[in-house]
Amino acid sequence: MKNLLIYLTHPHVGVWNLQDRHVEQLSAQFPGFRIVKCLHSKEFLEGISEADAAICWYFRREWVGRASRLQWIATPAAGSDWIDLPPESSITIHHGGFHGLMMAESVLGAMLYFCKAFEASRNFQKQKKWARIKLSQQISSLYRARVTILGFGRIGRTIGRAVKPFGSLVTGVRRRADERPDYFDEADRVVPVDRLDEVLPETDHLVLVLPGGKETDGLLTADHFARLPAHCHLYNVGRGNPYREEHLVRALETRQIAGAYLDVFDEEPLPESSPLWGFDNVLIQPHLSAASPQYLDLFIQELIGKIKS
Amino acid sequence: MKNLLIYLTHPHVGVWNLQDRHVEQLSAQFPGFRIVKCLHSKEFLEGISEADAAICWYFRREWVGRASRLQWIATPAAGSDWIDLPPESSITIHHGGFHGLMMAESVLGAMLYFCKAFEASRNFQKQKKWARIKLSQQISSLYRARVTILGFGRIGRTIGRAVKPFGSLVTGVRRRADERPDYFDEADRVVPVDRLDEVLPETDHLVLVLPGGKETDGLLTADHFARLPAHCHLYNVGRGNPYREEHLVRALETRQIAGAYLDVFDEEPLPESSPLWGFDNVLIQPHLSAASPQYLDLFIQELIGKIKS
Repeated sequence: MKNLLIYLTHPHVGVWNLQDRHVEQLSAQFPGFRIVKCLHSKEFLEGISEADAAICWYFRREWVGRASRLQWIATPAAGSDWIDLPPESSITIHHGGFHGLMMAESVLGAMLYFCKAFEASRNFQKQKKWARIKLSQQISSLYRARVTILGFGRIGRTIGRAVKPFGSLVTGVRRRADERPDYFDEADRVVPVDRLDEVLPETDHLVLVLPGGKETDGLLTADHFARLPAHCHLYNVGRGNPYREEHLVRALETRQIAGAYLDVFDEEPLPESSPLWGFDNVLIQPHLSAASPQYLDLFIQELIGKIKS
Repeated sequence: MKNLLIYLTHPHVGVWNLQDRHVEQLSAQFPGFRIVKCLHSKEFLEGISEADAAICWYFRREWVGRASRLQWIATPAAGSDWIDLPPESSITIHHGGFHGLMMAESVLGAMLYFCKAFEASRNFQKQKKWARIKLSQQISSLYRARVTILGFGRIGRTIGRAVKPFGSLVTGVRRRADERPDYFDEADRVVPVDRLDEVLPETDHLVLVLPGGKETDGLLTADHFARLPAHCHLYNVGRGNPYREEHLVRALETRQIAGAYLDVFDEEPLPESSPLWGFDNVLIQPHLSAASPQYLDLFIQELIGKIKS
């Protein structure tokens, strides 16, 4: 009998707490595992020396010494920020890869929120105004819209797939422009990141799905913002590090871009002093683009598939 | 040489005015037609006796007597409200059938606006609050959401197609439950309208895409609203006649439903006295769900295909 140690609680987001139904599902699928569910890091640490496998949100480097039997760690997170193992560790890490669809809902929702002028519609509504002329001038469509997705891995490609049925043209930007998703039309393309300068002026919606870390730090400069068309909207659901907040603020202030959906920030929680809070053409969410009541159902379902295969 | 008379101007919505590029496109595709573009109804009426074909937003019954050569009328509108011919008329009417995709953008946008708690997000943003706990409790997903589309013709089916990639379950309701769209999963279904009572309690998103007229007048009663789950959202992009506004207001006031996206109303413009303006969980647009800068491009493209075939 092997031991599976689970410590999957989240202090802020209820839907990221493991439920009994998930434990039952795992028990049924993995009869060879004895499952221990921890509610505190202390319990998790006490159990780690006996654990053959673990499911958790974070793992600290200094815990590895105690985890002599540990073969794999599974975490729902897509980013590698919170599982910190020394380079020589032989423990396998399973990152969640199920986020794309939920994040695509958030990004597509934000695109349509801007395209359909929902903010202006609500403002006219509060004034009881049937503003057909003014609103019709503000409404746009995803039909033939040029959507550039910077960071075209699994999540980026899922976002691209979500906009295609509306007739958008997708440009995926990644380090190596090697893969064309099966849903691409002839007009869609994947380009390497060194062609970013050329792609930005032809972008109506710029979606950032970049991982954090040194490689993406400051990837998007003030000059890059200046290359975007004034009607372009920005969407960031990756990490907050690819641009400096002051550059984004200036691009918004000087109307170099039309607006932004921001779910991630260099400093989280976003400080009260940030000017970003104050823009009417900015929609801020507190790092929730992948939040959904089905989040852990999807994770457990994916994990079962991975471990069984 | 035949005469094609075009009177396609709209007093309120700029994108519904014919542009020169459309006339050029028609000229190029139909060399056998002399095209006359009218800017006023007077011009249109003066030209109608010589016209073999007409493109217009509205046609009055009393004009038919003068239109002895007229073979067809094409109108961008999907609804048959504005082309009024006597029953014995042999003039063919071509209604636009291209609206679905743009209306699907509006409906999907409104669904995600509610699912992703964008209104609450904007309100917390205005208070500079990183409200991760509260917002995460309000966010839902289209994954496994039960979407009921009342009025499952061409537009309704296009809306259904737009939600399927997110894993929703679609129930189309129509007079005769005879057709299954090709994009359906096993769990999707088309049911006849006499099973509406049974379908409503199993609905998370109720989309109304019904045509106006006597057949749909009052189709949705106060009792129907009472059958919907309290978390259900309503979307109306058809016509305003299928329910009485007071019944909808009561359903919203008593939280029988969670909110509504309303683009059409029994009386338009919606009177200032309507209580609907005042709900924070209602998103009102002034009959613009199909508005888009590409509206007439799509119409002309479709019309060329129809006439040539």
